[in-house]
Amino acid sequence: MADRRARTATLLMHCPDRPGVVAAVTRFLATHGANIVDLDQHVDRAEGVFFMRVRWELEGFALDAEAFEAAFRSGIADHFDAVWQLHHQDRPLRLALFVSKMSHCLYDLLSRWQSGEWRVEIPLIISNHDTLRPVAQQFGIPFHCFAISPENKAEQEAAEIELLERHGIDLVVLARYMQIVGPALINAFPQRIINIHHSFLPAFAGARPYHAAHARGVKIIGATSHYVTEDLDAGPIIDQDVTRITHRDSIKALVRKGQDLEKLVLARGVWAHLQRQTLVYRNRTIVFS
Amino acid sequence: MADRRARTATLLMHCPDRPGVVAAVTRFLATHGANIVDLDQHVDRAEGVFFMRVRWELEGFALDAEAFEAAFRSGIADHFDAVWQLHHQDRPLRLALFVSKMSHCLYDLLSRWQSGEWRVEIPLIISNHDTLRPVAQQFGIPFHCFAISPENKAEQEAAEIELLERHGIDLVVLARYMQIVGPALINAFPQRIINIHHSFLPAFAGARPYHAAHARGVKIIGATSHYVTEDLDAGPIIDQDVTRITHRDSIKALVRKGQDLEKLVLARGVWAHLQRQTLVYRNRTIVFS
Amino acid sequence: MADRRARTATLLMHCPDRPGVVAAVTRFLATHGANIVDLDQHVDRAEGVFFMRVRWELEGFALDAEAFEAAFRSGIADHFDAVWQLHHQDRPLRLALFVSKMSHCLYDLLSRWQSGEWRVEIPLIISNHDTLRPVAQQFGIPFHCFAISPENKAEQEAAEIELLERHGIDLVVLARYMQIVGPALINAFPQRIINIHHSFLPAFAGARPYHAAHARGVKIIGATSHYVTEDLDAGPIIDQDVTRITHRDSIKALVRKGQDLEKLVLARGVWAHLQRQTLVYRNRTIVFS
Amino acid sequence: MADRRARTATLLMHCPDRPGVVAAVTRFLATHGANIVDLDQHVDRAEGVFFMRVRWELEGFALDAEAFEAAFRSGIADHFDAVWQLHHQDRPLRLALFVSKMSHCLYDLLSRWQSGEWRVEIPLIISNHDTLRPVAQQFGIPFHCFAISPENKAEQEAAEIELLERHGIDLVVLARYMQIVGPALINAFPQRIINIHHSFLPAFAGARPYHAAHARGVKIIGATSHYVTEDLDAGPIIDQDVTRITHRDSIKALVRKGQDLEKLVLARGVWAHLQRQTLVYRNRTIVFS
Repeated sequence: MADRRARTATLLMHCPDRPGVVAAVTRFLATHGANIVDLDQHVDRAEGVFFMRVRWELEGFALDAEAFEAAFRSGIADHFDAVWQLHHQDRPLRLALFVSKMSHCLYDLLSRWQSGEWRVEIPLIISNHDTLRPVAQQFGIPFHCFAISPENKAEQEAAEIELLERHGIDLVVLARYMQIVGPALINAFPQRIINIHHSFLPAFAGARPYHAAHARGVKIIGATSHYVTEDLDAGPIIDQDVTRITHRDSIKALVRKGQDLEKLVLARGVWAHLQRQTLVYRNRTIVFS
Repeated sequence: MADRRARTATLLMHCPDRPGVVAAVTRFLATHGANIVDLDQHVDRAEGVFFMRVRWELEGFALDAEAFEAAFRSGIADHFDAVWQLHHQDRPLRLALFVSKMSHCLYDLLSRWQSGEWRVEIPLIISNHDTLRPVAQQFGIPFHCFAISPENKAEQEAAEIELLERHGIDLVVLARYMQIVGPALINAFPQRIINIHHSFLPAFAGARPYHAAHARGVKIIGATSHYVTEDLDAGPIIDQDVTRITHRDSIKALVRKGQDLEKLVLARGVWAHLQRQTLVYRNRTIVFS
Repeated sequence: MADRRARTATLLMHCPDRPGVVAAVTRFLATHGANIVDLDQHVDRAEGVFFMRVRWELEGFALDAEAFEAAFRSGIADHFDAVWQLHHQDRPLRLALFVSKMSHCLYDLLSRWQSGEWRVEIPLIISNHDTLRPVAQQFGIPFHCFAISPENKAEQEAAEIELLERHGIDLVVLARYMQIVGPALINAFPQRIINIHHSFLPAFAGARPYHAAHARGVKIIGATSHYVTEDLDAGPIIDQDVTRITHRDSIKALVRKGQDLEKLVLARGVWAHLQRQTLVYRNRTIVFS
Repeated sequence: MADRRARTATLLMHCPDRPGVVAAVTRFLATHGANIVDLDQHVDRAEGVFFMRVRWELEGFALDAEAFEAAFRSGIADHFDAVWQLHHQDRPLRLALFVSKMSHCLYDLLSRWQSGEWRVEIPLIISNHDTLRPVAQQFGIPFHCFAISPENKAEQEAAEIELLERHGIDLVVLARYMQIVGPALINAFPQRIINIHHSFLPAFAGARPYHAAHARGVKIIGATSHYVTEDLDAGPIIDQDVTRITHRDSIKALVRKGQDLEKLVLARGVWAHLQRQTLVYRNRTIVFS
């Protein structure tokens, strides 16, 4: 018996803002028998752009993915000059986790997978250190170590890309992976690599943000999950959260408090992606509700 | 020259959930020349109810309020069995503020009005004490004192209702008004009376919530803005917020910290109403974005 | 080589508020060679009670635990009529985790232990269901299942107490244990049982708080960690936290968002206990910083 | 009859961390008859610095300010190489408010003063524009307009300093004053000028932070109150707070939401100063509880 959760399709689209887009899309879907489950739209008036996410039940819907593509293109997309993606939620997404030496985000993600909280597959974990191999083994997930040096970086990342593609990875999660990811890997997974940065970006981008936060004497620290682009720590932000600190908190205390934030904010960022709630436009994200 | 902000209409509606509602409504609006500015919809699957808020520019829209009513009823509402309200934002709403002896919410609301942050009119302030008359005078607003006793309560509230109706009041704001409002007044302004309660409801309903919070030893206190119904402190919640406290905070400190919450949460609740973002259904609010 | 973290002692005390307590205690410690690391005091003026936590390095301190007891009693405690506890942080505390069917808090606590984030020992996990045995096994921790029925409850809890005492358990953590704990167990571990309740207490005490929160239409949900007393969900609160929700959140979404809160708030409550930062007085906690 | 609140003294001090400081200070105070009301201490282990705030009742205390100075210097300060300030809370502090064209912080501060929530005096308001003169007049406070141009800036600020000193101003509050304050004014009021910056510093320092936040696509905005130093927006932070935003929020909406934060964070920063809870050390603040 099929999983009930699998039986929906999600359309993400944006186009120049013009009257009648919502009417046209919802009429198109209704015509083909869709029962709309969620619809969220947004108009950015400053940019003049219309954004929409709509999700409907596949039960009773007349078009398969191929037929949808042809019909939607000619019926809607060409007319409104729309950029769009269709996602059939008929199989679990496949995640690759990248880690280094810190385990808190790794444990958190693996727990969500193993407990069934998230309906995903995690075929492999990649690291630049061997430290966390026992955690991967304990959860029964293949662990691949690619030590990175300036000399071998391009070559190692090429091997990683090959591995990711061979395993049909949909999304790469950098779960406190302490290496700057190179352009080849980024370009192989555009808007499909999510990183957790341990600060409230754009404050304290780069290395050692807790040290920098302590030195500046801020009263609140944060964490940021974002899509990775070639600009370090400058990609589109998916989620952020913060926690209050005081002068009593040493750098070590900031690290401890911050790790709880990192787990939460990374998980929420990945969850939004899994739900196909995110759409990137000009280095910002629309996170539909 | 007309205020640009005045030139929109907002439709709030709910109906049994059926396919095609969004399509029908947006097509209806498009047919009559509406340029949709905001559209937010929600389906409560457990209840099987569809909710929608849609706002459009009146510029170029073919129907005035009367013509809309006739066309929308026959074209949409009867077909989908919809309950709906149309709001033309072509004039400022008229607010009456009810206060007792504490001034913090009163100052906050008057400041938002006088500074132009809110485009509203405040024709009168009503109180059961004379204490805050000087504040009303300073802001140039007529102040009406209705002392309330068990014996005269019904009579006094009848006089208040008469006064409110004579001044064409759209919304009553209980800005720390320390009297239980009677049924006649509540029924005269259904879903048009907003109260601020100084706790995180449903915790600490009733009198002296800061004392109760202190006695219980909670680590967070809150405030709640809600529509007033005949059940005390049990009406539909519009907004809530909280702040962290510690064992160091005396009851006096809770009051001081809580007052900042009360100002904020009341203002946000009133703002949501002014924007016509709120819809009440079975003692809960939909607060559209 | 000894763990640096182990080399401190912590004194928690309270007494009637009188001038000179801080001076007397700090002079007492200085006289015996203590280097104070942390000192936090609080006076509850309404109750007339003085509270203090002081932590000092054992390196160079002249008194062992026994000698401290004698000297502190005659030198300070008797004079000021003080209630006090001394904790030597020279060994990891021993925790027992109680669970039922939900795993999110269990994974979180086990991860903090296994990663070394927390310096504790977890000699056993107790459950009233067999569901989470695989998780315990995966982390290599003995799992004891005590099925509870109204008939066998007292007997089973007696067996649990025996097991806990045999393993030298310092702290019992109810990590979403869905059974009301009986008085014998509570009295065997006074102020040494911490529970996570999945609401912002005192709102929604008892069963199914997410359902109740949804029905009431609150805009914020919470979680509460507290010491267990014989009054259900009414023991001294250690920590609370909240997250914002909207009308869009189904009960299922509340559960999902709430579980992240539960993990965090339980972990923070246990951490405060581990650090000996908590002191209970009249059903409230002092949580020293 | 004297105001009960006036009858305390507060000592703020820091010195190299050595054993026995707390004991020495509290013994010193006890010897002279002080009943300690609050004591909060902090040791920065990384810096090796001890910080303390202690407040006691003047009733029954044997030393007046002058006698205290002599006795404390020879008895404590010289011995421990301490830097210290004594504050007798026997009169309201005198505040000057600096504003430009935006009124939200001004209304908020004036309301706290006029309602008696804050026991302060506000002898004057200074502005570089005439816009808010009516607000000052409404609250009965003298309003001084000093239009600033690059040519006259030094001269105008000299006049402002003269005015501030003539009125015995203790604290300058920049309540959205949109002018960079020059070094002469800063040096005339070291650690006695508090500014509100409308971002979560160090993110978005400088002009137009809401525009920058919108462009970067952050999911949370903030506000920061800080002491003013010659480095723009880089002085010691007293308080910060944040609020969640979404892609739906236009720049105008950020401004609206941010103004509520600004009011709150500025008020809390000023309050902490009024309570003598703040101590600046190396561009960071200790904010005692």
